[in-house]
Order: sequence, then C-alpha cells, then structure tokens
Amino acid sequence: MKIAVDAMGADYGPGPVIEGVVMALSDYPEYEFVLVGHSAKLPFYLEKYGIAGHPRISIVHAETVCEMSEPSTIALRAKKDSSITTCARLLKAKEVDAMVTPGHTGATVAATKVLVRTLPGIDRPALAASLPLKRGGRFILMDAGANTECTPVNIVQFAIMGEVYAQYLFQLETPRVSLLSVGGEDIKGNDLTKESFKLLEQREQLNFVGNVEADVIFEDVADVLVTDGFSGNVMLKGIEGLARSTMYWLKRVLSKNALRLAGAMLAKNAFIELRSLGDADDIGGAPLLGINGICIIGHGSSSPRAVRSAIRVAGECVTFGLNERITARLNATGSNTAELEHELADAKK
Amino acid sequence: MKIAVDAMGADYGPGPVIEGVVMALSDYPEYEFVLVGHSAKLPFYLEKYGIAGHPRISIVHAETVCEMSEPSTIALRAKKDSSITTCARLLKAKEVDAMVTPGHTGATVAATKVLVRTLPGIDRPALAASLPLKRGGRFILMDAGANTECTPVNIVQFAIMGEVYAQYLFQLETPRVSLLSVGGEDIKGNDLTKESFKLLEQREQLNFVGNVEADVIFEDVADVLVTDGFSGNVMLKGIEGLARSTMYWLKRVLSKNALRLAGAMLAKNAFIELRSLGDADDIGGAPLLGINGICIIGHGSSSPRAVRSAIRVAGECVTFGLNERITARLNATGSNTAELEHELADAKK
Repeated sequence: MKIAVDAMGADYGPGPVIEGVVMALSDYPEYEFVLVGHSAKLPFYLEKYGIAGHPRISIVHAETVCEMSEPSTIALRAKKDSSITTCARLLKAKEVDAMVTPGHTGATVAATKVLVRTLPGIDRPALAASLPLKRGGRFILMDAGANTECTPVNIVQFAIMGEVYAQYLFQLETPRVSLLSVGGEDIKGNDLTKESFKLLEQREQLNFVGNVEADVIFEDVADVLVTDGFSGNVMLKGIEGLARSTMYWLKRVLSKNALRLAGAMLAKNAFIELRSLGDADDIGGAPLLGINGICIIGHGSSSPRAVRSAIRVAGECVTFGLNERITARLNATGSNTAELEHELADAKK
Repeated sequence: MKIAVDAMGADYGPGPVIEGVVMALSDYPEYEFVLVGHSAKLPFYLEKYGIAGHPRISIVHAETVCEMSEPSTIALRAKKDSSITTCARLLKAKEVDAMVTPGHTGATVAATKVLVRTLPGIDRPALAASLPLKRGGRFILMDAGANTECTPVNIVQFAIMGEVYAQYLFQLETPRVSLLSVGGEDIKGNDLTKESFKLLEQREQLNFVGNVEADVIFEDVADVLVTDGFSGNVMLKGIEGLARSTMYWLKRVLSKNALRLAGAMLAKNAFIELRSLGDADDIGGAPLLGINGICIIGHGSSSPRAVRSAIRVAGECVTFGLNERITARLNATGSNTAELEHELADAKK
C-alpha cells in the first residue's frame, strides 16, 4: 500500500500533516508514504518529527501550493506543479494506490477529474461528506460540492457510489439511499429531483427510500442522502455556519452572570463533548468518489488525528475495493452513463 | 385596516390563533379582523376567549382546512372552500388589506399566486424568511421555498423585493443584498447564480455585495440573501434540523453525570435564552412577497405571540406601502420581467 500525501496544502503548513503521517507509520507497518511538497522545505519537518530517512517515506517535489483563495482551475493552469496536481499525477500513473490532501477541494476535484479521470461509466465524481445523526452514528451527504450543475444521470450515480461507500463506512449490506428534496411527496421537488426520483425508483436493487426534507436529515431516515453539488454545498455550509454560531451563542448566554458561569464551569466537559460531536477527526475527510483512484480530501485545518484517519480511510477503501465495487454495482443496476441517458431519453418520448 | 386571519390552518386548531387575535385587538384599536374558518366551530373559541360579538370581529365561513400532509394544489382543487383559499379570495376582492395564515405554506403560495396574482412586473412571488445573526440582529433569506425552479429574472426580483422588505424590517435605507453561492468569487456558482450575478451587478442603485457562501451567512455579511427556492429551502430546513439536534445533544451531554446536571441547573436560564434565539415570535412569520396584496405565512405551531406579531407585521407592511414601494423600485431599477428578459436575451447574443 503506497499513499501520496499532500504535505503542503493544509492551512497551517506541513506540521500537522507530517504528525499525522508519523501516527500512520506506526499504525500501518505495511504502508509506504510519498510526501508531496517542496523538497527543500519538507526535510526540516521530517527531522523535527523524527522520521528523516525513514525507509517507508519518500519525497516527491512539488514547487507550488494551491492557496485556498485561488480558483479551482489554478491546479491545471498556473500551478501545474502544485502539490495537489503532483499527487493527482502520481495517482494517475498508478505510482500510488491512493492520495490524501488537506488542501483546496475545488483544485483537487479539478486536477483529479482531468488527470485521473472518472471510473468507466461514471459521468462525474462527487464529494461524500458525512454528518452526525441526532441519536448517534452518521449519514453520508453527496454531492457535497464537487459539481455545481448536475443531471439526473449524476444523481443516480451519486446514489450508487454513496451506497458502496456506506457499505464500507457503516458496514451495511443494503444502505438506505434517499433524495434530498423540498417535500416528502414524490410529486414535490424541482425538475432535477423529479426526474432523478423516477430513475432511482426503477432501480429495484437499490434500497431507495424516497424524498427526504432537510429538516429531518439528522433523524436517521437514511444512510445516504443524494443531491446536486450546489444544494448539497449550501446546506452543508449553512449547517457548519449555524454550528459555529451556536457555540458562540452558548458561550455568550453562559457568561451573562456569575451563576451561569459557575454552572458552565461545573458542566465544562459537557461543552467539550458537544463541540467534539461536530468534528469528524475519526473519518478524516471526504472521499472524492467516482474518479479512477482513491482520493480523500481533508479539511484545510485537519488535526494530526484527522490526517491519520484520512490515511486509514484511504487505505481501507483500497483494500475494500471501493472502486471495483462501484463499477460492479453500476453494471448490476444498469447505471452507466450511456444506459441512464438512454433511459431518460426513452422516458421523454 | 382590515385583516383576514386564517383561524383554522394552525397545527393545534383555532385556540392559539384566536388568542393572538385577542392580543392584537387591544394592541391595534383601529384594526378589524375577519376570522376565516368554520362558522359552526369558531363561535366556541370566540366565546372561550371573551370576544364573542366583538364589534371589530367578523367571521367568514370556510368549510375545509388544507392539512399539512396534503399537496399544495389542494387549495385550488379539492378544497376550493378551504380557509386559505377563502382568505386569498378576500384579499383578491380587496375586502381585506392583508391576510395572515399559520397554515400550509405551499397551499398559500398556490392559492395567492392564482387568485391574488403577482404584482405588475413581477414574475414570481417569494417567501422571505428571517434568521438570527451571530452577533445580534437578523437577515432575510429569500426565496425560502415558494419556487423550486427559478430563473435569473426571479433572482433579481427577489433581490428587489427583499431590499424593500429589509427597508421596512430593519429600517435601513440601503440594505446590503447578496447572492447565495458556493464560492465567494464571481466566477463560482452554477449557471443560475452566474447569470443572476451579472444582472444584479448591473443594477447600480442596488447595494449588491456579491456572492456569499453559506458558512458565513450568520456573520452579518448582508441584510438580504437571495437564492432559488430549492436551495433556500434545503439550507433553511437543514439549519432548523441542526438547531433541533443541537438542543437534543446539549441535553444529552448535560445529563451524563451529577456534576454536569448540577451545572446545568445553575445555568438553566442560559439554555432557555439559547433556545429563544431560534424562535421568531417577534416577527411572527414569513411574508410572501410579490403577490398583489400583503400575505404573512406563520409557522403551523405559531404561539399566540407569534400570531400577534404576524398581524402587526401585516398591518405595518400595508402602512409602509410595501407593495407600492416594490413596484416603484422595480421600475426605478429596470427590473420588470420584460425588461430583465430583454437584458438576458441581449447578453446571450
């Protein structure tokens, strides 16, 4: 198992990433790591974290880094030598089995889509985020933002890819797949959800549980929630924004007087626990599903623990045969792009 | 001022609605109320709340009620005699100045769109929800779900309508208007936001502040946030779902042991305050902007206080001349449907 790790893309530089790699080195004695980044800068960190000259570590030079403020296309234009682009190139050449980056999501999507390409039969890749359920456990949301414009073909393929990922992540045989919409009834929604609904419903092998409204997504109504990348992204980010605001509000109302402050001190661990519900350090990131390789995209501010988890997930996805299973499932359900387009055209006749 | 109140549409029957009307009767000695509902059932409640035979109360009979589980079209098909449809009919006939309903949002949109019609020059109405900002105050989100399919024409008109509503609600002269997107940069977004961005940018009289990503919407970056009704609805409902889950999580982490429970008891009022941040009882509901009349849609589980607020907002919107101002602003910015369509066609040449 050889994993390329983008060592430069994180918000706080190589430190937390290298620390995560150090953890993974001892977790997985059979894994090899290709650290991608500036060859003049990385040795300092390897030295610092005590893994200089480690037999399972190698460095591949990347001259630049895609900054968060830069457009996604930068990875393919002005910064073809970025750490993200270099990781994608290694993945394409099959020099590594998987890549992990805590870098620019859009740039990673762009670079892998163009360089690594999608799996045969898949039109577009999708980002699979996972969110906590109210009563424990998690669910998968996809597309969380890889595609701003989607077709029913994409939605169905997101459902198939999400199903296989849920089989891995939740160890479920037949994960429940749902469609995000504005009403529980089949007849509600927009043109995209209505057309997608019909296609999903026709796939009898899929455990499709129908439309789900956004206010019940935390109630364990489905294991996979599919939607277009625009809606998925605004919902996910709206939720992130509220979570941050809520922690702020909680702090404010608790510090209003001495009595409340005393109470807050006593219950301190409860708030630490509440905050930790939000972080996904044990998953480490969102896989970009549908490309011809395994790619895990972590948060820019990933902790070392999150990096370690992302590496674990990347390795496990390879071992699980995630992409082979997606391809098999795509064929079994007649969900290759050409098949779906044919079905759509037939329905319109 | 004469206001039609849908007395039957709320989740818990006429009680809370009539209680809200009782409050409004004393708040606004010049307002008259037309209670719309079953004429055999309402007198019981008027008696109960001590307003039977009140000189400023009249009843208009409506045989049926649109249930929340029924499709929106019910108001125009099987239940043309519903309380919502009857309110819309009174508004259309100008027998009332405004209508307030705590009933079925979709049914209200359908009934008013068809019966009351849109304002001249407006293509589609939009639901204007308001959400709390992190550091106090609120912002307006529209469309919160009246339209599942939108065009750039609709988005621009939502911006104009939202601007005027913000002038009323926040007493601002030039509210900041923003466009919900998946990236801060102009070039990001989907086809709809890209086209809408150009049109909004060209309206120099509009204080358009550009794209806003959903994770910063609580940070006071804009007074009005416009988007299509599908994205707006899934974001709003996702946020509502998280808010509910968070209160559940908070309770769970606080009741884990005796120490935390003791702390929670001491700080009890803080949690009550936190919960109250979420309710919008002082606004009472979301106006449906763009129809040729004033219509406020409250929550199905509106408290009497929320009903009172909805009545206040309805009356104030009439006095403010909300619709006259929308029409004037539409003309001043060249944003009538025909003008916008022309501009779009020109841009595509």
